[in-house]
Amino acid sequence: MATDGAASSSGYVGPLLTDHYQLTMAYAYWQGGRADEPAVFDLFFRTPPFQGEFCVFAGLDDVLSFLDAYAFTDDDVAFLRSGVLADADPAFFSWLTALRPSALTVRALPEGTVAFPHVPLMIVSGPLALVQLLETTLLVLVNFASLVATNAARHRLAAGRAARLLEFGLRRAQGPDGAMTASKYAYVGGFDGTSNVSAGRAWGIPTVGTHAHSFAQCFSSLDDLAVTTIAAPVGVGAGDGGGGGGGGGGGAAAAAANGAADGAARPPPVPFLPTVLAIRERLGYDTKDGELAAFVSYAQSFPRSFLALVDTYDTLASGVPNYICVAAALLAVGYTPRGLRLDSGDLALLSKRARGLLVAADGALGLGGALVAASSIVASNDISESTLHSLRSQGHAVDAFGIGTNLVTCAAQPSLGCVFKLVRLGGAPKVKLSEDVAKLSIPGEKAAYRLYGSEGTPLVDLMALAAEPPPAVGVPVLCRHPFVEGSRCLVRPARVECLYRLRDRVAEQVWALPAEHTRSLNPTPYKVSVSQALFALTHKLWLAEAPLRTLS
Amino acid sequence: MATDGAASSSGYVGPLLTDHYQLTMAYAYWQGGRADEPAVFDLFFRTPPFQGEFCVFAGLDDVLSFLDAYAFTDDDVAFLRSGVLADADPAFFSWLTALRPSALTVRALPEGTVAFPHVPLMIVSGPLALVQLLETTLLVLVNFASLVATNAARHRLAAGRAARLLEFGLRRAQGPDGAMTASKYAYVGGFDGTSNVSAGRAWGIPTVGTHAHSFAQCFSSLDDLAVTTIAAPVGVGAGDGGGGGGGGGGGAAAAAANGAADGAARPPPVPFLPTVLAIRERLGYDTKDGELAAFVSYAQSFPRSFLALVDTYDTLASGVPNYICVAAALLAVGYTPRGLRLDSGDLALLSKRARGLLVAADGALGLGGALVAASSIVASNDISESTLHSLRSQGHAVDAFGIGTNLVTCAAQPSLGCVFKLVRLGGAPKVKLSEDVAKLSIPGEKAAYRLYGSEGTPLVDLMALAAEPPPAVGVPVLCRHPFVEGSRCLVRPARVECLYRLRDRVAEQVWALPAEHTRSLNPTPYKVSVSQALFALTHKLWLAEAPLRTLS
Repeated sequence: MATDGAASSSGYVGPLLTDHYQLTMAYAYWQGGRADEPAVFDLFFRTPPFQGEFCVFAGLDDVLSFLDAYAFTDDDVAFLRSGVLADADPAFFSWLTALRPSALTVRALPEGTVAFPHVPLMIVSGPLALVQLLETTLLVLVNFASLVATNAARHRLAAGRAARLLEFGLRRAQGPDGAMTASKYAYVGGFDGTSNVSAGRAWGIPTVGTHAHSFAQCFSSLDDLAVTTIAAPVGVGAGDGGGGGGGGGGGAAAAAANGAADGAARPPPVPFLPTVLAIRERLGYDTKDGELAAFVSYAQSFPRSFLALVDTYDTLASGVPNYICVAAALLAVGYTPRGLRLDSGDLALLSKRARGLLVAADGALGLGGALVAASSIVASNDISESTLHSLRSQGHAVDAFGIGTNLVTCAAQPSLGCVFKLVRLGGAPKVKLSEDVAKLSIPGEKAAYRLYGSEGTPLVDLMALAAEPPPAVGVPVLCRHPFVEGSRCLVRPARVECLYRLRDRVAEQVWALPAEHTRSLNPTPYKVSVSQALFALTHKLWLAEAPLRTLS
Repeated sequence: MATDGAASSSGYVGPLLTDHYQLTMAYAYWQGGRADEPAVFDLFFRTPPFQGEFCVFAGLDDVLSFLDAYAFTDDDVAFLRSGVLADADPAFFSWLTALRPSALTVRALPEGTVAFPHVPLMIVSGPLALVQLLETTLLVLVNFASLVATNAARHRLAAGRAARLLEFGLRRAQGPDGAMTASKYAYVGGFDGTSNVSAGRAWGIPTVGTHAHSFAQCFSSLDDLAVTTIAAPVGVGAGDGGGGGGGGGGGAAAAAANGAADGAARPPPVPFLPTVLAIRERLGYDTKDGELAAFVSYAQSFPRSFLALVDTYDTLASGVPNYICVAAALLAVGYTPRGLRLDSGDLALLSKRARGLLVAADGALGLGGALVAASSIVASNDISESTLHSLRSQGHAVDAFGIGTNLVTCAAQPSLGCVFKLVRLGGAPKVKLSEDVAKLSIPGEKAAYRLYGSEGTPLVDLMALAAEPPPAVGVPVLCRHPFVEGSRCLVRPARVECLYRLRDRVAEQVWALPAEHTRSLNPTPYKVSVSQALFALTHKLWLAEAPLRTLS
């Protein structure tokens, strides 16, 4: 993925992006002579977001960038001495500035892994005070990234594999970095593009867009058009307008520019508005001239990526017919239009009616299906996961969805509650007690395995102590749910995947792969549902009384 | 406010932090010869957040920073030519790189103003294509800042003026900048401090904190204490432990460090653990030794800002008694403790019981109220605006609230729907039509006035055309609600405040003032409720049939 030298992480991330109390605790550990005791912390969530069963782990790339650069500067220390740690022994700051990430061991799930409650996403080992200092920053980097990636994956599952999913949330996101994080991890979670140009630059995510209502508003009549021609297409031949039809949703215009920069002789422009008006006449449409002028103007500027917003005035009476006139004229001149966008109203009904108008016009103009094939229907307007389910159940003719607020703010649940808990100190396992059994932390340094059945589908995630032997292929292993008494099963794995990787950078773009990875994943094929026995411990903290099932 | 040279804005903000379609529209305007037509856009919201009646406008500081620096770099242009605008005429990029913010006029409400639907928060005038290019960035900067400031103000109204409000949301925020924005604008909206150390550094917001459960977990017995003494207090005399009691919530330790750096001769440490244990014995407490050791250790490190988290094991049986032992010992040695934090359970009940234990111990130890006076009770644990209302109705003994997720993610409504609409182009007013009357934009360049009654309270916000004469003191003005037919009133203002300021920087820290400003505001004294006639237009778009009321 190209990063192009642009900002690819928030300028805010550093050792001081933490809670006040992490620094006071670190000082207290240091002063009590305990700062360097070897400690192990688990980062995990207790409840999956969106009342679902899984979470897509994300944010590891940002975590590793943060850890790679972890060091307190003299400026950081000066700030701490001016306030937070004004009373501290000066020798502490020598210890603090000597801290280096090489003292840490980080084991983590691969970025984009489907993960389940209580199984650590990351396990961080190192000197007690140093690991404690990381808590808040790791949480803020993992919580929202994983939440958005999960939300995106859920939208993908709801929309189906064929639909193009476009993230349109920049303006409603929780600040610039909220937006950037959302653009990045929506892509990781299975989206196809974003409207956010900075995200395109930072991470090479395809950017998409058309025009806004204000653009249509700016044209009152056909007199607002400066010229009535359009640039002649260049390339292999007429009809090869670049980019191909059916791609939908806009997309960056294809690479071979219209001869823009190369100074080569350009063919003279060809008539365009008369062609558009002749088509309108032929189809007998009575549409708004101002809107038509806007579409013509936009097509003149983007003849190879023409996509029109059709609901400024009246979608079916003016917008779609105006799109058809301009799109058919583009085809006549030798370009391929891209499609239209619906941004209000009943999207199921309007998309089907719009498709009907396209089919009728294609027939009336004798285009042999070229207009229909080229014209993607993009839908936007406050779309959510539940809207997608509803549209699927109603039937629709939408090819691509632009999804903003509900995706990027995770409106259905705007935070993920990952926690970071001490599970071993020195040689001793540590537990956080709670009256709420689900809030108990599970002590000890852990390993986790994904056990697959003979059909190649995952059966269960198994958590064990790191010191225990891993499960073996073909050997039945008793798995117990850690918090549901009596929930257990016997699993005979056909394949055993060790879930954690020891993370180091090695010039690896950790996050770049998972978009395809998660796009191809389906979190549902687990044979055992999460509420029964997906998470299990091999050590016998819980009794199993229910009838035993065997999975293989 | 000190900024200390640290990052005080997201590295992501710049001309490319925008939607793809803004750039394609700008190009289409330019190619159509319309890029420099004079245009006016309003930035406003249609519906107040949180089902409330108002919004606190915020984000202006970030907007002005963005605008001050607005210019496309050669790198920006190279990126656009590689994709988004690959087909564009090269002459466009000369126009683009020549864009400067000096071509803009920005009128805005002062940062921190209580604002109401449809009255523009900002009015931006300038060349059409330039102003269009700003849309997305202005929205992302204003939407979340205003949402958080409003949320904070609502928490302040719910908690009452006396409570200290502390923002604890960093780990659950929507990314690092979501967190930073939340910390900044929660302060603008009326909070007193934050746990976010970077926000403290960037903007001088007081930072606060104590310790986490993991700190208490790290101590198993009194043997885990490295020393049993505590540094002798220095200063005017015993009891002047620095910072004073009752402040609550932690806070940076007072400035005069414990002689840490000045090399002056220090008095030898004094016994501490024996004092603590003697107090425990005297009060007959049977508490957890590990927790007590943790508190002693923390007090040894922070004798002048001791604040203990008391719910790691059992709040009333161990945590509060252990706090009392250490706090009373600190008083005996000559320090002033700060208080305790509750992080689980029934906060109303536990705070009252904790206060009862403090009062009883103070009496039993003959402290004359010193222990009670010094010991703030801080409450945290998923507190929301509705929790605060509920706690007030139940009665509680909480002095300070630490509020995280619900504040910083605005969980009750995680986005604000500000829009940016063209209202004038060339000399002509522009309107966005919609079948939904509330989605109509109000055309024309506007002014807005806050009219005050003879008692000094605001009566109504009046929107008018900028070209209309302003309302005059003592002269009745007919105000109509723009969208509620028949809703009108006659207002005789005792004072007329013009709401917009022409914004330029002039070395002004726009945002620094409003914390006090909003802390002192009360959005409720308006005599006319929003649902009746708070917003009105003087031009007669709507008929008024209802009986006319006069306000003065």
